[in-house]
Amino acid sequence: MIKKIKHIGVAVDDLQTARDFFQETFDLSTSDQENFGELLFSFIPMEGTNLELLQSTEADGQIAKFIQKRGEGIHHIAMEVDDIQSELDRLKAKGLKLINEKPYRNAHQELVAFIHPKSTFGVLIELIQTD
Amino acid sequence: MIKKIKHIGVAVDDLQTARDFFQETFDLSTSDQENFGELLFSFIPMEGTNLELLQSTEADGQIAKFIQKRGEGIHHIAMEVDDIQSELDRLKAKGLKLINEKPYRNAHQELVAFIHPKSTFGVLIELIQTD
Repeated sequence: MIKKIKHIGVAVDDLQTARDFFQETFDLSTSDQENFGELLFSFIPMEGTNLELLQSTEADGQIAKFIQKRGEGIHHIAMEVDDIQSELDRLKAKGLKLINEKPYRNAHQELVAFIHPKSTFGVLIELIQTD
Repeated sequence: MIKKIKHIGVAVDDLQTARDFFQETFDLSTSDQENFGELLFSFIPMEGTNLELLQSTEADGQIAKFIQKRGEGIHHIAMEVDDIQSELDRLKAKGLKLINEKPYRNAHQELVAFIHPKSTFGVLIELIQTD
């Protein structure tokens, strides 16, 4: 059961450039830069849902490869769920292709997993269980 | 001044197929299909922000051309502003490339205008003034 759209992930070449842009051009504050594996990221808290700016620190990182193929832009949307494992099991049983059949913990210790965009009209959906 | 993220627009080949999918797979309700110019659309009201499903009725429509180039997927995000014309003037003065320098009215009589994604890290941003 989807509770809400938690954030919209945006793939950028350079996190600091993007943070400066959203701050200076749109007067939106950004959270401190964080590092997780080969990801650098920062959130822009907004009413409605948040933006998440994402940069790879490695040339063969997932965000870098996304940008090589499609250019900078929206990478995924994150949807919050109550029980991520039961949701993954339910979606798999319905025939959806999952990138992660088992959730893993992100930088904030939330359980997350991705659904393959081929199953969801080209939209890469991240499921998040926050507690 | 950005007030909130109002919706996330998703380009799909067939609106009815996408509506059925989100309803049946995620138990999300969708608004009645509406028609505006060469667009068919329907909203999925969600906590946080809404999803907007978009289909072209013409083979050379904007959504159809987007899908031909990039496949189905996230097309734009809509940000609500208080005064769209002053926002457009401000962004133009900052050097951003605008698709619409003057807003126009959408199907719901809201004033809308798009910023070129080259100016915003590949993200197509729609500005909306709701009243």
